[in-house]
Amino acid sequence: MDLLELLKKRYSVRKFDGRKVEKEKLDLILEAGRVAPTAVNFQPQRILVIESEQALQKLKECTPYHFNAPLALLICFDKNVSWKRGHDNYEMGVVDASIVTTQMMLEIENLGLGTTWVGSFKPELLRTFFNIPENYEPVAILPVGYPAHDSAPNPHHNERYDLSHTVFYNSF
Amino acid sequence: MDLLELLKKRYSVRKFDGRKVEKEKLDLILEAGRVAPTAVNFQPQRILVIESEQALQKLKECTPYHFNAPLALLICFDKNVSWKRGHDNYEMGVVDASIVTTQMMLEIENLGLGTTWVGSFKPELLRTFFNIPENYEPVAILPVGYPAHDSAPNPHHNERYDLSHTVFYNSF
Repeated sequence: MDLLELLKKRYSVRKFDGRKVEKEKLDLILEAGRVAPTAVNFQPQRILVIESEQALQKLKECTPYHFNAPLALLICFDKNVSWKRGHDNYEMGVVDASIVTTQMMLEIENLGLGTTWVGSFKPELLRTFFNIPENYEPVAILPVGYPAHDSAPNPHHNERYDLSHTVFYNSF
Repeated sequence: MDLLELLKKRYSVRKFDGRKVEKEKLDLILEAGRVAPTAVNFQPQRILVIESEQALQKLKECTPYHFNAPLALLICFDKNVSWKRGHDNYEMGVVDASIVTTQMMLEIENLGLGTTWVGSFKPELLRTFFNIPENYEPVAILPVGYPAHDSAPNPHHNERYDLSHTVFYNSF
């Protein structure tokens, strides 16, 4: 597997077939997040595995994203643990949680599963339903499952600018 | 190449040999960032390639991180472009820039090069030296080069908690 091939092949899967995600695959996904680098190696990520029918139903109330995945991961960080940049107190926990989520997202693809990075949710509803402590900040949801046979990339969502649009040399 | 193997092999390279990074490899690294998913596919990442001797010298003044890399990438996002969550106006640009940076970090490793994710820097100095527009927020610096022969993982930086420390099931 070439990494760039994997990165290009990946797309936001929004429709899943009914199959459950095997425990061994879930463990590999979590392992991909576990080994991620975080600021000062503080590892502030706190991950909720949502797999019970009841918990999945609650999750659906927290986001306008409609999914029928048999499993979801809610990635938070602990503000009491994450590193703040000394210079200006910049909160690095969002960055750390995003690195962890990206590595899990890629391992999901690598295992033949699919996901969509969901950032659209109601944090306070999540807090209530899943007993999220005050010092945890939710950053992302990854629904996980096997892509349905008729799942396909949304052409509009998969278009990217040329590098000339986003890359500059030596000075902006 | 197994993805998880790559994720586990990666470590923060802080010492580089003198070799330049080939243009073809730089292009592959940038491509790994280009194809990254971003919220609503708005692609707010703005990346500065720092490779001139003068620009690298300036960069060193902006961070306490000492590196002798022949190349560095400064990853920002454009606040005028990035998606804000409708529900609470949460800024998703930091997340987007972090996804892009993670994909580039992994491609760097995949190409036999090395990097360290640098989050410790003085944003206002970066702004001055590199003409960063007011609406761009700098998120990360990736120095890039070939690891020196005696470069090795810092054992302290590479230890990770067991999953039981960071993963919960169905409710916190």
